[in-house]
Amino acid sequence: MPVEEIGGGYPVEKFLLAFAIVLIASKLFGELFERFKQPSVLGELVAGVVLGGSVLALVPSIQGEAGYEMFHLLAEVGVAILLFEIGLETDLKGLLRVGITSTLVAVVGVVAPFVLGFFSILAFAKAGMLGQIEGNMVTLIAITVGATLTATSVGITARVLSDMNRLQTPEARIVIGAAVIDDVIGLIILAVVSGIIVAAKAGSNPEVSFLQIGFITLKAFGFLFGAILLGNLLSRRLFDLVDKMGVRGVLLLSALSFAFIFAWVAKIVGLAPIVGSFAAGLVLANTNQFKLIEERLKPVADVFTPVFFIMVGAAVNVAVFNPFVKENHSVLLIALVLTVVAIGGKVVCGLAVFQKGIKKMVVGIGMIPRGEVGLIFAQFGLVQGVFDSRLFSAITVMVMLTTFVAPPLLQIAFSGQGGGAAGQKEAGLGT
Amino acid sequence: MPVEEIGGGYPVEKFLLAFAIVLIASKLFGELFERFKQPSVLGELVAGVVLGGSVLALVPSIQGEAGYEMFHLLAEVGVAILLFEIGLETDLKGLLRVGITSTLVAVVGVVAPFVLGFFSILAFAKAGMLGQIEGNMVTLIAITVGATLTATSVGITARVLSDMNRLQTPEARIVIGAAVIDDVIGLIILAVVSGIIVAAKAGSNPEVSFLQIGFITLKAFGFLFGAILLGNLLSRRLFDLVDKMGVRGVLLLSALSFAFIFAWVAKIVGLAPIVGSFAAGLVLANTNQFKLIEERLKPVADVFTPVFFIMVGAAVNVAVFNPFVKENHSVLLIALVLTVVAIGGKVVCGLAVFQKGIKKMVVGIGMIPRGEVGLIFAQFGLVQGVFDSRLFSAITVMVMLTTFVAPPLLQIAFSGQGGGAAGQKEAGLGT
Repeated sequence: MPVEEIGGGYPVEKFLLAFAIVLIASKLFGELFERFKQPSVLGELVAGVVLGGSVLALVPSIQGEAGYEMFHLLAEVGVAILLFEIGLETDLKGLLRVGITSTLVAVVGVVAPFVLGFFSILAFAKAGMLGQIEGNMVTLIAITVGATLTATSVGITARVLSDMNRLQTPEARIVIGAAVIDDVIGLIILAVVSGIIVAAKAGSNPEVSFLQIGFITLKAFGFLFGAILLGNLLSRRLFDLVDKMGVRGVLLLSALSFAFIFAWVAKIVGLAPIVGSFAAGLVLANTNQFKLIEERLKPVADVFTPVFFIMVGAAVNVAVFNPFVKENHSVLLIALVLTVVAIGGKVVCGLAVFQKGIKKMVVGIGMIPRGEVGLIFAQFGLVQGVFDSRLFSAITVMVMLTTFVAPPLLQIAFSGQGGGAAGQKEAGLGT
Repeated sequence: MPVEEIGGGYPVEKFLLAFAIVLIASKLFGELFERFKQPSVLGELVAGVVLGGSVLALVPSIQGEAGYEMFHLLAEVGVAILLFEIGLETDLKGLLRVGITSTLVAVVGVVAPFVLGFFSILAFAKAGMLGQIEGNMVTLIAITVGATLTATSVGITARVLSDMNRLQTPEARIVIGAAVIDDVIGLIILAVVSGIIVAAKAGSNPEVSFLQIGFITLKAFGFLFGAILLGNLLSRRLFDLVDKMGVRGVLLLSALSFAFIFAWVAKIVGLAPIVGSFAAGLVLANTNQFKLIEERLKPVADVFTPVFFIMVGAAVNVAVFNPFVKENHSVLLIALVLTVVAIGGKVVCGLAVFQKGIKKMVVGIGMIPRGEVGLIFAQFGLVQGVFDSRLFSAITVMVMLTTFVAPPLLQIAFSGQGGGAAGQKEAGLGT
């Protein structure tokens, strides 16, 4: 009976089974990690590695594979909903209070890893560890690796902080604010880097127009401020109107649509969709219905967000870890150095915090995970032909290690001695 | 910046926008229809027609279109969750009490429309209204049309009854039980018809092995009884274990995975996935956690089920309605006759109810909507080359009309005079 297969290449029952496996594995590993006092998100990532193409291959993790597009899109919906939820839980006024600090942290957290990564690659090239490449290409690779190192995955840090009930601490606000600014800076860098690559491929001298950079920067900040201002003007009236509707599920679906449309606008303007859904969350936090929205969003987020973390884990190729294969040695060394650079470059940005009573280590560590953003950059480099598959693997390992290392370090840093812990606003969380 | 497009053919932001449009349109039309005292599901279907390829084309409704597969799969997840929810709300013991009645209703509801449809097509062929076709082919078309007419969409009726808070009435139990049995019978017919088509294409005489029919029937009933018996043995212990886990969302995701796995098993056995998720709901209704599962499933169902109803509506081609195009006349006449046959053939099955105090009209009308099941059959006929596009359009119109006509008729029949209304168990609903 080929009836169900009419719809397309990926049969419904395979999708349902893979979805069930994703949900079960993420919760089993999450529970296991929580029992060992680790954040559940780490377990979800490990579950993803185990389910991915390089181990069990139970989830479509390779582009072009049947069902990959479906899970890729669901994962994107997952991050969008995750950022929306985080936006809803974020106190905008508190975020503005840490605005200058967040900006400082973000800028240091972009510049430091970029410079360190850039010169590491130049050194590797001199040592002949990148293989035979042209002189001009080395600069291009170094710039792209540097750009990959600048990203901060707000999703993973925020989830860890949420799991620890620390989302309302000033440290969390600084980190999330900085990660959002980082995202904006990262997208500007990406735009600039892709401009350089296009110019390099055309044979002309890589040149960057400052006017262009200025324009992209203006657009990004313009969107954020515009979305929040306009959203705040409209959202209260809009949702008071929605509240008068009686049809089932109307409040939840209106809120979700609001987030999706903001994500769409963000993409249209040239930003990542998650920036939009985060802004939507910030805006809806000011509506009269926000408690109800938060409550009904939770089960929906529970269904979608694990897909994102599983897909991040599943993209990891375990084979490059094998130290008994001789070819892996240089890859492992590059991965190791990049990881040290990635961690060091972000930890120093904690020093940019000048406020008193803030745990600088928490801020620095909170900025470490590259997660999905780092992977997007790495894949961009691969597709553009800047990275070969070995360098791509090394970068992937770096992204993974930063993501794996941050949650336990964050827990240690939070529970360690030092100012700031007394002023935590933990009440009202965990509802 | 082509970074987000790496993942595949359908960009994330387009998907998010289309998803938002689906959710907003379904709730706006749902609200509008409720204000006019119509069930909201009817509004969602109309919203689907408006968003579909033949009107606004805001939702990918044509196979092969970018994003179609994604929305098709989401719609399938939507029906699966809908049937799971219905299963959770269904009182199995009550269903068994109406078992014989449901079986009688289902059998009459299959035989009557099949016979009526079969002879209608023979008459149309004699009148030359089907165009030039070979003699052998007429029988094949007549059988396939007849098979299409046998389907009952449990989803739409159940949703209407749920909207009306009538899901616990004996009429609802008979209809839902009969619709489930109908689904099983329908799948057996589909298997037989596809066997006939394959034989006809191979040039041999269409022959059906009774042994084969018996085997498929056994398999279907075996699955249902096996799933419910085994499920009841395991589910209580399993979910008491899940209850001891502390990780966020574990109860909801376990229940959902349970439903998805049952749906997968159903498909593996050769049945529709929705039969499996319905069985999963029946089973989990007996766990200690079922109230919590029901409560947390609601927002998730709110997100997924509108996609299903929108996709059913979007598959409708409005152009064949236009009476000013001369070529549409015979299509319109065929559609009209098939609709009358479809309605009449199901209404008579209410007469198979011999219990006292049951509104026979409610049962008969409740069996009318063909919905997604009818569309699956129609598409099967088209893909197999049995239906040309005109006949397919006529059948689509029939499916749509039966779906559109049932909800208001059901409301009239329920509110009309006649036995059975007094014994309704409405308490405990609408939680």
